Amino acid sequence: MSRPVVAVVGATGAVGVEFLHCLAQRDFPMSDLRLLASARSKGKTMDFKGGSLKVEELTAESFKGVDIALFSAGSGISKEFGPAAARQGTVVVDNSSAFRMDDKVPLVIPEINSEAIAKHEGIIANPNCSTIIAITPLWPIHKHNRIERLIAATYQAASGAGAAAMEELVESTRAYLEGREYKNTVLPHPYAFNLFSHNTKIDPATGYNEEETKLLRETRKIFADPTIRVSATCVRVPVLRAHSEALNFECERPITPEEVRAMLTGAPGIKIVDDAENSYFPMPKDASGQDDILVGRIRRDISDPSGKSIAMFVAGDQLLKGAALNAVQIAERLL
Amino acid sequence: MSRPVVAVVGATGAVGVEFLHCLAQRDFPMSDLRLLASARSKGKTMDFKGGSLKVEELTAESFKGVDIALFSAGSGISKEFGPAAARQGTVVVDNSSAFRMDDKVPLVIPEINSEAIAKHEGIIANPNCSTIIAITPLWPIHKHNRIERLIAATYQAASGAGAAAMEELVESTRAYLEGREYKNTVLPHPYAFNLFSHNTKIDPATGYNEEETKLLRETRKIFADPTIRVSATCVRVPVLRAHSEALNFECERPITPEEVRAMLTGAPGIKIVDDAENSYFPMPKDASGQDDILVGRIRRDISDPSGKSIAMFVAGDQLLKGAALNAVQIAERLL
Repeated sequence: MSRPVVAVVGATGAVGVEFLHCLAQRDFPMSDLRLLASARSKGKTMDFKGGSLKVEELTAESFKGVDIALFSAGSGISKEFGPAAARQGTVVVDNSSAFRMDDKVPLVIPEINSEAIAKHEGIIANPNCSTIIAITPLWPIHKHNRIERLIAATYQAASGAGAAAMEELVESTRAYLEGREYKNTVLPHPYAFNLFSHNTKIDPATGYNEEETKLLRETRKIFADPTIRVSATCVRVPVLRAHSEALNFECERPITPEEVRAMLTGAPGIKIVDDAENSYFPMPKDASGQDDILVGRIRRDISDPSGKSIAMFVAGDQLLKGAALNAVQIAERLL
Repeated sequence: MSRPVVAVVGATGAVGVEFLHCLAQRDFPMSDLRLLASARSKGKTMDFKGGSLKVEELTAESFKGVDIALFSAGSGISKEFGPAAARQGTVVVDNSSAFRMDDKVPLVIPEINSEAIAKHEGIIANPNCSTIIAITPLWPIHKHNRIERLIAATYQAASGAGAAAMEELVESTRAYLEGREYKNTVLPHPYAFNLFSHNTKIDPATGYNEEETKLLRETRKIFADPTIRVSATCVRVPVLRAHSEALNFECERPITPEEVRAMLTGAPGIKIVDDAENSYFPMPKDASGQDDILVGRIRRDISDPSGKSIAMFVAGDQLLKGAALNAVQIAERLL
């Protein structure tokens, strides 16, 4: 597969647009690029490398001759079209949660477990955004000194709920500032200058919502470590496209902030932003549009006297490393 | 002291306005109310119980005949005027950090340690807002099953940095939506659709900022428990006036979410908002303007297999229970 035919499924969505951005920016070698979306978007054109591509309607026939399909159109679409596309020879890189926990589907962050890609049977899953942004910077530490426990509190952007949610944040905020009423239709709660618990379903057995449960299960699968324990609190904040997370983690053996800093310095996909003197740390504003995950506030977790725990704060672009970029990086390993 | 003369220092600030609101709403018995502020605000008038009061300039003479002074004008003003006011007989309830860790100054959340008020020597300190909002709901639990460790990630509102910061959030967001440049002057980073680590000084020895260190030290003092271990990550989010916090805590003995719910039901100053079915949990929008601290997402911390740990999410009005209301509640106990 040296110059594959690539299809983007969900091309007009928030992640779809970033797929195109990443493919162009990274000069991904292709012999053809097909943009697929719902009937509603059929005939729309999208810019790509100075030219313009027409959006086609996604149908069962769309994948004929397609080598790699990047899916980001929700679990339903992935389930409906992904397996059939894979059966007829397309390698599906799926951004939805549809197949992530399937034993036959590798779940991949290339910086962590790119070797898992080779085991695919037609579908490779892209992890959830909040998992990618939390654990890409944890891996270089975990490799040296196993992380046994992680407590994460997330500050998640609108983009995780799609382009319509980003627009709802903008429009509801505009209405608030102009003193107008605004009826939210995309997200379950008013979003202007507000925040709320991630509105995925809560598991009555544990009290954790799906987003939080993903952080536990996906981390175990990607790290190939079924014993790591994760408690997450996932919160949607009025930010447009980068997730931040406060992470407290406990290692197997004592560890110092200096060791963590050394492990993360030069690690792929990571940038340390930890300037205490100027109070400059990871911020969504800086992470937006950037490939790297920003890591800062690296310090001892002083609530653990064993010296095995570290606290830090991370921020990453939800649409790039949290979604499109990670999927394109997977596709690059397929070539 | 049945109908004291009361002075409000910093009357025109964000907390000052709420002092007036609380005194009026709670019908605080007073024979006179004096509003004090800097020379700049001299002569301004403020509404109180349907009438109008003139703001006087704060001077060393301002406290003659004043029985209770509620201070919220920053540490500098508290240090300059508080001790002298106390010496000539005024009881100072101080909202700044100036005297909080002074052994001779009670640090009080009335729901927790109102008995400490009696020991005052002229000054009583009001705790930091993020401490009040975190630990008021932890106390009913701590009383029954000692909390040994707390990990807190905060989602702090603009109001904690004063009225000018609230205005900067509004004006910078307006500029962002209108595509205009905005130069932030109050807070150190752009605030529109952004968040950043709390911009207090970082202690080079620990890596924790002052806000985070307050949460540790003030909790120990208020709980009268020098052994409780606290690791906080304090973050400013683009919300106007209510702080939220993700709390993970570990008790001395195993504890269940049902026990926590029972301990918090009917606890003073607490309202449980924990409706998983409708994804309805504590939100700053609901906490704003409300006296109670909202508590929800009560669940086992599944990263601790001992069964001693709980995760929950809280939200409270930073200007009310986080500042003015708590101080007025202290003043009420003085009567």
